[in-house]
Amino acid sequence: MPESKPFTSSDLSLFSESVFKQIGCSSADAALASKVLLMADLRGIDSHGLARLSGYVRLYENGRINTQPNISIVRDKKANFTIDGDSGLGLVVGPKTMEIAIEKAHLHGNGMGSVMNSNHFGIAAYHAMMALEHRFMGLAMTNASPLVAPTNSKERMLGTNPICFAIPAHQHPAFVLDMASSAAANGKLEIAERKQLAIPIGWLEDLNGQSTSDPKDLKAGGYLLPLGSDKDHGSHKGYGLGALVDILSGVLSGANFGPWVPPFVAFLPVLPDLPGKGLGHFIGAIDIDGFMAYEDFTTRMDKWIERFKAAKPIDPMHPVIIPGEPEYVAHQDRLVSGIPLNNRVVEDLTQLAIHLNLDHPF
Amino acid sequence: MPESKPFTSSDLSLFSESVFKQIGCSSADAALASKVLLMADLRGIDSHGLARLSGYVRLYENGRINTQPNISIVRDKKANFTIDGDSGLGLVVGPKTMEIAIEKAHLHGNGMGSVMNSNHFGIAAYHAMMALEHRFMGLAMTNASPLVAPTNSKERMLGTNPICFAIPAHQHPAFVLDMASSAAANGKLEIAERKQLAIPIGWLEDLNGQSTSDPKDLKAGGYLLPLGSDKDHGSHKGYGLGALVDILSGVLSGANFGPWVPPFVAFLPVLPDLPGKGLGHFIGAIDIDGFMAYEDFTTRMDKWIERFKAAKPIDPMHPVIIPGEPEYVAHQDRLVSGIPLNNRVVEDLTQLAIHLNLDHPF
Repeated sequence: MPESKPFTSSDLSLFSESVFKQIGCSSADAALASKVLLMADLRGIDSHGLARLSGYVRLYENGRINTQPNISIVRDKKANFTIDGDSGLGLVVGPKTMEIAIEKAHLHGNGMGSVMNSNHFGIAAYHAMMALEHRFMGLAMTNASPLVAPTNSKERMLGTNPICFAIPAHQHPAFVLDMASSAAANGKLEIAERKQLAIPIGWLEDLNGQSTSDPKDLKAGGYLLPLGSDKDHGSHKGYGLGALVDILSGVLSGANFGPWVPPFVAFLPVLPDLPGKGLGHFIGAIDIDGFMAYEDFTTRMDKWIERFKAAKPIDPMHPVIIPGEPEYVAHQDRLVSGIPLNNRVVEDLTQLAIHLNLDHPF
Repeated sequence: MPESKPFTSSDLSLFSESVFKQIGCSSADAALASKVLLMADLRGIDSHGLARLSGYVRLYENGRINTQPNISIVRDKKANFTIDGDSGLGLVVGPKTMEIAIEKAHLHGNGMGSVMNSNHFGIAAYHAMMALEHRFMGLAMTNASPLVAPTNSKERMLGTNPICFAIPAHQHPAFVLDMASSAAANGKLEIAERKQLAIPIGWLEDLNGQSTSDPKDLKAGGYLLPLGSDKDHGSHKGYGLGALVDILSGVLSGANFGPWVPPFVAFLPVLPDLPGKGLGHFIGAIDIDGFMAYEDFTTRMDKWIERFKAAKPIDPMHPVIIPGEPEYVAHQDRLVSGIPLNNRVVEDLTQLAIHLNLDHPF
């Protein structure tokens, strides 16, 4: 997969902002949405960064994104609340929800927001990590376009429904678990498909319910497998986690759930007789000080991290990795050395610039 | 695995209560601890029921359980709190923590309790499901004796650290996800070992970091694998989930964490220089009404459940199962037809009765 020369995050950010403004976002929303996308690129989650920009534009052009949403609290009771995202960009709805969750955590000890009528919110880690600077833990999850079949089924019923928890440490970077509840995230299949590589058995089954190593079988009607891959290895647990995310994000908020979650790609139709509005998130902040003095906790987290990094390795060249550590390293590196983009992404963004009649850095 | 004739839950409960009273529990605590154990047997989780009774007694006899604990709130701030279980039975500490979480949820919208200085609390589902009758969601997790190696390591660093969420529906039984964060729960290995059966590759590695299908390799120094089994199939996610449970239960509460969690079996020593007290739980209740009217939510849950049960099956004889459904069916059945016990468990309980000089139904 050939890559471009690195771009600076400020160049990419300026371009992304101009795109969001061109489709009608306010300056503030365009900056926020760009910040969320760029955070994915900086952290090395290339599938969720600028690579998705043209996808959001296509959703807008298909009338599925409202770039001037009235994001509102539709229910509010102590620590808990429900947000109507008014079909706004999830990239904007997500952070606004976390801001409210943080206010709630200051007032009530924690804050939990369920969100309906939103769209894809980028990397869950952006939203969860917002809580860290307030000395809180953050959590974020979202349902997503159905691609995963539950154990025993060959029907796409769940998204890759990610779960993220961000937990601060003292001297070490935060613990940031941000994981799809499927065996492999869709982005990994896209990469294998671009590189024309086989994928491991246990990621995907074809439309007849047979194992396959050909990533193209997903678009041909197949489905991703839940974390665990098969019954013997606990796929019912991956299915259960994806279901939990779907219920907290979709059922609890008034959004769509299960197979009714609107697809991210604009060329796939939205199903009829929807049980809710848009897709859903679940976002929360938890005040650590309610359990233990913050400094005591983060010092204990340091001890946890150091002990796990020192766990006896199978291969001394590959020590145990702390969740969030590779993304932290990528972030530090790319802030300095810039962000390389896949050449297809550069081409796609160039076309997008031409399509929207915008200057571009490519 | 030959099984006994079924016992009534009241006979087993009476016996269990007499055991807990004999080692010094109050009548109320003995009844509560027995109720938690029996719930496991009723729900078909045979590994966590009466089969463990003699294990708790051995822990008591080794001075690791205080049967007259002063369970206290050591920190309390709005929705959040920390419990010191005073080395009590987790079977008693767990429900008391959930009672406080439920009170908190009435006051603040939700309640989250982190628990230190406790012991093994039986099935997580018992504690989480206590929230259901209050029209709340319940969650429960616990760290446990280290048996699982993180991805890249061959050292036992985590327990099978279960995660449980209980979520009510209207006409259908509650959604109850109660899953170990390892590829297979330890109980499954114990069953295979008793039956002298091979286990699937992907559950266990031996002390040299090699795959094995021999369940005896665990006691020989091997370790369980996280959900996902290997890197290609997302074992870092299973490790991340186990780590999350360890942090919320152990680091946040002041309990031990990682490899320092005291082993359940009394013949294994507790490590020196412990970073905390006992083991830890994390237990919470969430007021559904803070997000959506309860009846609207449970009606939507019915729709979710019905749609998932109707998902296109690979084999029409094996439809999609809702988390908690098999346990619900077992519960209904065993309330009527009684609880069969493995003959080795019957023998073990008979010996226990003789050892403690108690009447018994075996």
